[in-house]
Amino acid sequence: MTPLASHLRGSWHVPRDEGVPLRDAATGEEVARFSTAGTDFAAALGHGRRVGGPALREMTFHRRAALLKSLALHLREHREDLYGPSLRTGATPADARFDVDGGIGVLFSYASRGRRELPDDTLLPEGPAEPLGKGGGFAARHVMTPMRGVAVQINAFNFPVWGPLEKLAQAFLAGMPSLIKPAPQTAYVTVALMELIVGSGVLPEGAVQLFCGDARGLLDHLTEQDLVAFTGSAATARALRAHPVVAARAVRFTAEADSLNCSILGPDAVPGGAEFDLFTGQLVTEMTVKAGQKCTAIRRALVPAPLLGPVTDAVAARLSAVTVGHPADPATRMGPLVSLGQRDEVRRAIKELTAAGALVFGDPDRVEVTGADPGTGAFLSPILLRAGDPDRPEPHEVEAFGPVSTLMPYTSAEHAVELAARGRGSLAGSVVTGDPAFAREMVLGLAPWHGRLLVLDATAAAESTGHGSPLPALVHGGPGRAGGGEELGGIRGVLRHMHRTAVQGSPATLAAVTGRWTPGAPRATGGPHPFRKHLEDLRPGDSVVAGPRRVTLGAIERFAELTGDTFYAHMDEEAARANPFFDGRVAHGYLIVSLAAGLFVDPAPGPVLANYGLEDLRFRAPVYPGDELTVTLTAKHIDPREGAPYGEVRWDAEVVNQDGAAVATYDVLTLVARRGGVAPRGGRGET
Amino acid sequence: MTPLASHLRGSWHVPRDEGVPLRDAATGEEVARFSTAGTDFAAALGHGRRVGGPALREMTFHRRAALLKSLALHLREHREDLYGPSLRTGATPADARFDVDGGIGVLFSYASRGRRELPDDTLLPEGPAEPLGKGGGFAARHVMTPMRGVAVQINAFNFPVWGPLEKLAQAFLAGMPSLIKPAPQTAYVTVALMELIVGSGVLPEGAVQLFCGDARGLLDHLTEQDLVAFTGSAATARALRAHPVVAARAVRFTAEADSLNCSILGPDAVPGGAEFDLFTGQLVTEMTVKAGQKCTAIRRALVPAPLLGPVTDAVAARLSAVTVGHPADPATRMGPLVSLGQRDEVRRAIKELTAAGALVFGDPDRVEVTGADPGTGAFLSPILLRAGDPDRPEPHEVEAFGPVSTLMPYTSAEHAVELAARGRGSLAGSVVTGDPAFAREMVLGLAPWHGRLLVLDATAAAESTGHGSPLPALVHGGPGRAGGGEELGGIRGVLRHMHRTAVQGSPATLAAVTGRWTPGAPRATGGPHPFRKHLEDLRPGDSVVAGPRRVTLGAIERFAELTGDTFYAHMDEEAARANPFFDGRVAHGYLIVSLAAGLFVDPAPGPVLANYGLEDLRFRAPVYPGDELTVTLTAKHIDPREGAPYGEVRWDAEVVNQDGAAVATYDVLTLVARRGGVAPRGGRGET
Repeated sequence: MTPLASHLRGSWHVPRDEGVPLRDAATGEEVARFSTAGTDFAAALGHGRRVGGPALREMTFHRRAALLKSLALHLREHREDLYGPSLRTGATPADARFDVDGGIGVLFSYASRGRRELPDDTLLPEGPAEPLGKGGGFAARHVMTPMRGVAVQINAFNFPVWGPLEKLAQAFLAGMPSLIKPAPQTAYVTVALMELIVGSGVLPEGAVQLFCGDARGLLDHLTEQDLVAFTGSAATARALRAHPVVAARAVRFTAEADSLNCSILGPDAVPGGAEFDLFTGQLVTEMTVKAGQKCTAIRRALVPAPLLGPVTDAVAARLSAVTVGHPADPATRMGPLVSLGQRDEVRRAIKELTAAGALVFGDPDRVEVTGADPGTGAFLSPILLRAGDPDRPEPHEVEAFGPVSTLMPYTSAEHAVELAARGRGSLAGSVVTGDPAFAREMVLGLAPWHGRLLVLDATAAAESTGHGSPLPALVHGGPGRAGGGEELGGIRGVLRHMHRTAVQGSPATLAAVTGRWTPGAPRATGGPHPFRKHLEDLRPGDSVVAGPRRVTLGAIERFAELTGDTFYAHMDEEAARANPFFDGRVAHGYLIVSLAAGLFVDPAPGPVLANYGLEDLRFRAPVYPGDELTVTLTAKHIDPREGAPYGEVRWDAEVVNQDGAAVATYDVLTLVARRGGVAPRGGRGET
Repeated sequence: MTPLASHLRGSWHVPRDEGVPLRDAATGEEVARFSTAGTDFAAALGHGRRVGGPALREMTFHRRAALLKSLALHLREHREDLYGPSLRTGATPADARFDVDGGIGVLFSYASRGRRELPDDTLLPEGPAEPLGKGGGFAARHVMTPMRGVAVQINAFNFPVWGPLEKLAQAFLAGMPSLIKPAPQTAYVTVALMELIVGSGVLPEGAVQLFCGDARGLLDHLTEQDLVAFTGSAATARALRAHPVVAARAVRFTAEADSLNCSILGPDAVPGGAEFDLFTGQLVTEMTVKAGQKCTAIRRALVPAPLLGPVTDAVAARLSAVTVGHPADPATRMGPLVSLGQRDEVRRAIKELTAAGALVFGDPDRVEVTGADPGTGAFLSPILLRAGDPDRPEPHEVEAFGPVSTLMPYTSAEHAVELAARGRGSLAGSVVTGDPAFAREMVLGLAPWHGRLLVLDATAAAESTGHGSPLPALVHGGPGRAGGGEELGGIRGVLRHMHRTAVQGSPATLAAVTGRWTPGAPRATGGPHPFRKHLEDLRPGDSVVAGPRRVTLGAIERFAELTGDTFYAHMDEEAARANPFFDGRVAHGYLIVSLAAGLFVDPAPGPVLANYGLEDLRFRAPVYPGDELTVTLTAKHIDPREGAPYGEVRWDAEVVNQDGAAVATYDVLTLVARRGGVAPRGGRGET
């Protein structure tokens, strides 16, 4: 058997060495071999930088999002090809879905966010325009551009599909090529994934490479524009972070390390009550899913001291119903660990933990196994410990990366926070309570130590995604021992692959750079009404100035009568004068924007299909009867939607009075048709 | 003379050692002594964590902002006390204002942003609510909380006031205590600043400490909750980043290092033209302000090859008018370097640079000096080099941290980008051009290598803040050699001192945790109309449900007539039907929100003073004649303003039709009075 191939520089490369065997977790059979050789890292990184990067940067965010979606569809269609290899890592079918379907779900999620939350452009303005001069001739805008290097993605063994896919999704959407380095133990699953990716033909050349082998020396070739996204042990994270090239070139480094996550049961819980059962149920789930080989699993279960006994009994009872066995056996609830070596490590850690805690469930050296030979597989019983003295160091420092957890008592809310903090930084924590005040106190105390906190109660339980599940919408990472990094969190994860630059200049320059009209930039008036222009013909700066229109007391009264809005400031001169902001009766804010629309709207059918919203409306000065309003509407940002017959156009609206003072400013959001693009009837008009 | 004192654990500590002398840059006289001893770092950090942190975290953002403003006012009043010591560092009065007034300006800026952009609360929700379950029973929100450690701020010698103040402003507003470590050369100015800070009595105990001495060992005491903000040389940044404790505990580390910043003249420039003159003028300014001892100064000046001669002549002519001398001498335009040692280093660097570039202005060993003895002060002539071959390594690698710059030719836009990138990451760059297309091409090419880019042209020139000036509103930092960090950038700089946590739970839990009503959280209806409640009495969740109200065709027509908005979708059945989104005539969006106001507004005078805006308005479904609208208005966030007789209340508005389908959703922004708080007339009603 030759070692697993790498896919580098556009083709598969089979290593020439013998490699080391990777064994089926349940049977011990050889599944694959893993090379112990390196490769020409400079060439691989160079390929990503020279071929993949430019190809990605040429695409808009929407185009990249569309490709991510195509890839997700392809992978979903072929996901069965990943379930088979997953089984051999010890993953049960449910575990495999968590990894495989979860990973594909991240692709779908980023594809959808990319289309909804990012522009159909290659550059992303970030944050508001910053006026810098009083005269309006000088301003700034922050822009995000893709980093020009390669995202080196070092993955852990426990999620051979989800891990690479979640990292790839963020880098790809940002416009940065990926070099995936899987962990040896389960690399054959990632190779199967890469075969599907290559087979899909969806991603441009150089956008993804896969390296199976010894990564020593890889970091020596990094530059300022590369980044490292690492998932794995805290010890490796530490070594990589201090790597001379990483330190010298300020290489962006993000780590997500397994941590001593805690779950805290609230003092309001009673044995047999909803939160009590949620707590014990969740604990057993976290201990047994993936045989506890999850960076987010609960290692420390904190319960109010009086409940320590009842919780111990309840958890032990639930654990006794967990069947350990061959992952393919339908009776199996928990499969083996990934390897015999891993089991040795977990046993060593359990031994250390027993210095502080008594074994209350399970025997580290013996387990009943269904459907497999206990002598050949890396099977381990779930192990529950109880630390009578929660202030001993071991449970807060020693991680057993398997189906192992330690129960411990706490005496007060402060004590619980203090114990949780002794983990020195966690990926995830949970608080199981029906008491909102306790929840708030815990969240405020625990937040600086956690990347994610779940508050579980009876109302949340039905839809809860659980303590251990990272979600694409939420940040994944944690301080200190958890690596100090952040991944995911929706578009935040994309931005971490981009560089932020403050760009200063005249409004006209900023408009040219960002492709968006900026206050102070020239406006184009005098042509046809911009509502007569199709999407392709509109340009940022296209404007219409309309008015003036006098606001009469009669109009205010008719508006009040029509809408029912008879707020005193519009209706009663004396009462209005008593209001600290008004000198007398004022027009309704809604009347101002309605009149402005009456001025700027071009009524006949045309390319502008609908006004779907407003943003940032501010009433800046009162409008009194007799005031005359003029509105200027300016196309600010034109955002086509790939494949759609229309796009979104954001307009800047400024309403001024007869003195030229702004009385209302806002953005008008419209849908505008492409030329000949919209069917006359029906739905969101695919032509 | 005893060495400069530190202010630690609430009092001044005078070192017991002799220290080393710090000398006047112009005269060589001893100004102060600087200790070579350390201190009890664990105690100092412990004081910040135990005393300063809790005091700061108890305050809301608005309270901290108010204290920053008080401090800024105090410092402005006493700024003359800083100008004197500044002079002795070699800073001219203009240089000193850049440092002193600039630093105070950062405090004012953060005070103002804190009040405008952050809530009057101790916790900051960040980003939108994330629904996680289809049933609405499970959601998430990211929250930012202050890190629980100390911000260790290591400053450079060149801005002894601005440097510490910009770092302090961000940490303080975030709720994190500071430990300031000044650079020895100019530490007596920072001590004068600390005397003013302590004397002001404004900041709570433990919020700021100052350590003057040898910082070796300081980093050994850091934990996961501390952070290091470093400004200085790239070499020191590298060493600190790889410090074992920083690496092991994933200590947040941000560095801002001096870099080989470039300025690029566009090919559109012509000798004597506006951009040509702006470029040469700015280059001379950047070379001579602070005698070129600025991390952002222009070290590489790139000009189109045909303009190399004319630019050389123009810059040399301008440099020949620069008077070097004692900083107090009114004739002096450029003062000495900070020390003789610094001058030696610059001379060494110039020697290296001359391997690639010819000296075209100035003599490193000779300079005419006014008002001082050239034999005793660290005077140096401005030095201009010209690198005929811009592809030689020296100008892109060797930094002379003084009044030194190298001119070099480029042959194309790509060549200019390539040369700029050879600096391996810069804090600031500038492009001087009147051609927006060239500006866009340069910005897109340079952005990933720069923290800030200035595009200078004739329109921007009048208000331009210049190549070298970091601004509180804009990020300051840069990739790679520039340190890979980010500071400032408005509230972004505050967030870098806080930890982001995703909080998951039921909407009710999220509302309890964040103090904000969240969709799905319980609403309180049935009490008095919420518009009858003063600010102190309103609670998130206070609601009014109003309606239904039928929308008639008559109302649509009267609205169209009144406002002039006769868009065909409202007026013409056939044309409306042809629109892909509508099945016939629809009500105006503005009519929907106006009718909703008519339903929810309580007309009589009361605590709600004004509606000052709307946010996030989306029209979610068409409203047809005959539809019946019901609106629910719910208090979402109540934000008092410290010292003001009213506060801001944000309301969630949801308008549904007779089928319960949402037709419009938005936030209504109002000002609501405190009990008895608003004067009946006049201005923004201070009572």
